[in-house]
Amino acid sequence: MDVRTYIERHRETFVAELKEWLAIPSVSSDPEHGGDVHASAEWLARHLEDVGFATVEIWQTGGLPAVFAEWPAADPDAPTVLVYGHHDVQPVDPVEEWETDPFVPVEQGERLTGRGSSDDKGQVLFHTLGVRACMAASERQRPPVTLKLLVEGEEEAGSPNLTGLLEERRDRLACDVVVVSDTTMWDADTPSMCVGLRGMTDCQIDVYGPEVDLHSGTFGGAVPNPARALAGVLAGMHDSDGRVAIPGFYDDVVEVSADERELLARLPFDEAEWLRTARSTAAAGEAGYGTLERVWVRPTAEINGMWSGHTGAGPRTIVPSSAHAKVSFRLVPDQEPARVQRRVRDYVESALPEGVRATVGFSGPGVRACSSDITSPAVRAAREAMSRAFDTEVLFTREGGSGPEAALAGILEAPLVFVAVGLDDDRIHAPNEKVEVPLLLKGAESVAYLWEDLAARSRAASMSNRLW
Amino acid sequence: MDVRTYIERHRETFVAELKEWLAIPSVSSDPEHGGDVHASAEWLARHLEDVGFATVEIWQTGGLPAVFAEWPAADPDAPTVLVYGHHDVQPVDPVEEWETDPFVPVEQGERLTGRGSSDDKGQVLFHTLGVRACMAASERQRPPVTLKLLVEGEEEAGSPNLTGLLEERRDRLACDVVVVSDTTMWDADTPSMCVGLRGMTDCQIDVYGPEVDLHSGTFGGAVPNPARALAGVLAGMHDSDGRVAIPGFYDDVVEVSADERELLARLPFDEAEWLRTARSTAAAGEAGYGTLERVWVRPTAEINGMWSGHTGAGPRTIVPSSAHAKVSFRLVPDQEPARVQRRVRDYVESALPEGVRATVGFSGPGVRACSSDITSPAVRAAREAMSRAFDTEVLFTREGGSGPEAALAGILEAPLVFVAVGLDDDRIHAPNEKVEVPLLLKGAESVAYLWEDLAARSRAASMSNRLW
Repeated sequence: MDVRTYIERHRETFVAELKEWLAIPSVSSDPEHGGDVHASAEWLARHLEDVGFATVEIWQTGGLPAVFAEWPAADPDAPTVLVYGHHDVQPVDPVEEWETDPFVPVEQGERLTGRGSSDDKGQVLFHTLGVRACMAASERQRPPVTLKLLVEGEEEAGSPNLTGLLEERRDRLACDVVVVSDTTMWDADTPSMCVGLRGMTDCQIDVYGPEVDLHSGTFGGAVPNPARALAGVLAGMHDSDGRVAIPGFYDDVVEVSADERELLARLPFDEAEWLRTARSTAAAGEAGYGTLERVWVRPTAEINGMWSGHTGAGPRTIVPSSAHAKVSFRLVPDQEPARVQRRVRDYVESALPEGVRATVGFSGPGVRACSSDITSPAVRAAREAMSRAFDTEVLFTREGGSGPEAALAGILEAPLVFVAVGLDDDRIHAPNEKVEVPLLLKGAESVAYLWEDLAARSRAASMSNRLW
Repeated sequence: MDVRTYIERHRETFVAELKEWLAIPSVSSDPEHGGDVHASAEWLARHLEDVGFATVEIWQTGGLPAVFAEWPAADPDAPTVLVYGHHDVQPVDPVEEWETDPFVPVEQGERLTGRGSSDDKGQVLFHTLGVRACMAASERQRPPVTLKLLVEGEEEAGSPNLTGLLEERRDRLACDVVVVSDTTMWDADTPSMCVGLRGMTDCQIDVYGPEVDLHSGTFGGAVPNPARALAGVLAGMHDSDGRVAIPGFYDDVVEVSADERELLARLPFDEAEWLRTARSTAAAGEAGYGTLERVWVRPTAEINGMWSGHTGAGPRTIVPSSAHAKVSFRLVPDQEPARVQRRVRDYVESALPEGVRATVGFSGPGVRACSSDITSPAVRAAREAMSRAFDTEVLFTREGGSGPEAALAGILEAPLVFVAVGLDDDRIHAPNEKVEVPLLLKGAESVAYLWEDLAARSRAASMSNRLW
């Protein structure tokens, strides 16, 4: 029985299993649902045992549990793949906007609605269907690659314990490639592979002038105004071409290759439609780059918030004593968050007038950008596998946001490949999250082909670990 | 009996009367004290009748009452003087910081403590002592000038009904000069006359970008950020010389005369001490002007407050959909608030990038600056009268704040002369407001001389109404 037939015949079981899992409200950011996150981990562990994984463990962390599973290939020289996903979900507020109960999954036609259906339980679960299809098609008793799964329980809470877990369990997690199934495709008719996420670092800038708010009649015009100083700092962060004007900001930026730009340009991007989604009347950004490039492959400095002095009703004629802003920076390869942080501090210091001082506090070490080399064998194999599953060419996308994937690649020293079938209109993080069941089945089919292909390439190269 | 002797002999009565008035808590901004403001008006009306004013009226307004009184000179050609002051007081919060009950006035040595002692009941009341001293010294039955008093009851609430009252009662208030007794001197050892107040207009700038807050990962770098647009608008309001860069802002500004600059420079100004009061580590402002000039005779644009997007704890990586600022402009002669408002609107419009729009809402029509011509006979007479009372030269000051005085001058079409003896350390608007009784007596003495002098100058000129 070929992969596709196997998957089609097991669709009903697959959906039934997913519905069972989706019924567990594993909201990681809500302490009241801590027990549910544990229950979700237990459900997954039991399911992985049922599927046949040789080792299944629930890994406790300082927070909520991750699930680890391993199923060794018969061939000791077969490559090792680590699949990353998460079993926790977003909160459901505003719950009154859901048309059905977020934790009573409902199948209507091809669509399955429920919290976590797309992000990320559906995309984790297609792996168990995929590996069974792969084995059934080749009549194997074990997968052609050594398959490891790491399904964490705190992704929607910012993965606070993931880095520690990766460092602590580095040996158990050792692999030749990391497959991430937690992103989206261009759209249902345009299958695509994500090949990069931006990094991020964010800070709060606090500017201090006179120690107290001053009457603007008595003192105005003769003392430094920290709100004006902050406006200067913020306005000076960009030049008139929309480039970030912080000295050295672009030093380590790797320009995206002409090949990738050409591939991005082939995506059926409709700027008018994009602007409607953004509810913005104009696109704006760095000169010389299109909208997709601006959100995917170019770094940014963005004011997320600011406040100073009187913000209530009516006038209050003061020189405020302080002014504050939250600013975040999206990063691209090879910007180092720590280096960007130093550049930002130096810039703020240099942009302040006499009589005001500032502190720049970053919320953490920041997250590096990550990207896949589109010329690498792993990306080529994954693209071919997806093309075969979708019966069409697969294009490349990126994501402008940031996730824990850079930590996976960095700590495990393995390349990242994104195989995912979510859609931008799946309403993840919003009411009425749904997933298209046929796309989950295509995901299963893709990885079924991918495992065979990776094993074949490895055998052909006879030196698997050098392939990636 | 000369003026000084008369005043010294009546000091005790004067202080007793003032204490009686100060005991009435006429807080105009607190509706609970509305009855007390009425009681304060009634106390003053009775007192003015006792003193001998021919006409005493309580003028009801849409809000709280003003007191009007008139005492015609015997000589029908004598000039008419209108004295402006107010009988309402500031709130007393934080009341726990008062060392004595704010409405149980306490005399300790030369100092009288109580809410309103300096601002403005003490300075209103020195006029009744002054006119009696003036008449006693010249053995007149009536004052040498026609003396009118307008003592309003809503100054500390922003004088919302003063303009209407002035327009409605313009005939009754007609005068040759307006004497304002509601400002301060340089210090107790440096008697001075205020010769100008800055005007003011203030607005809220609301900048709108995308209709909703957007995820800065998904959209950041490709849509206009209204906080960045606002920062640009605010930063662009000044050039690198600290001048207001709004086109046309200085068009109608009258440069202060070299004579007045020279006189201002003679004030014993200690910038280090001023900075300690401001609790600022540096002075800053328009190039080419000193600190006193910057706060007194130069117009300003000052950010009073701003807010946008996420202002709570921790990061939230959004492109905010709107950004807001409160900005006030201190004005000098001959800036017209309405014209400045148009300039500000035009500037904001011109400074916005594509994809953001802004509204600029002014809180009202604004207040013109006012100033006295230091070469005018009225100012010269008042300065000489004060010099005689204080036995020393009187210098000129200005105030950087704004008050209702411009409306007096504008509607009554009469020049302003400031004769006042408050001190910057009288703690007006703060706990433990006090007044120096000897200075109130000097105020009484000053106006006693001034009325005689104005009458004499008028007779000498034989054409009183042309004098001013």
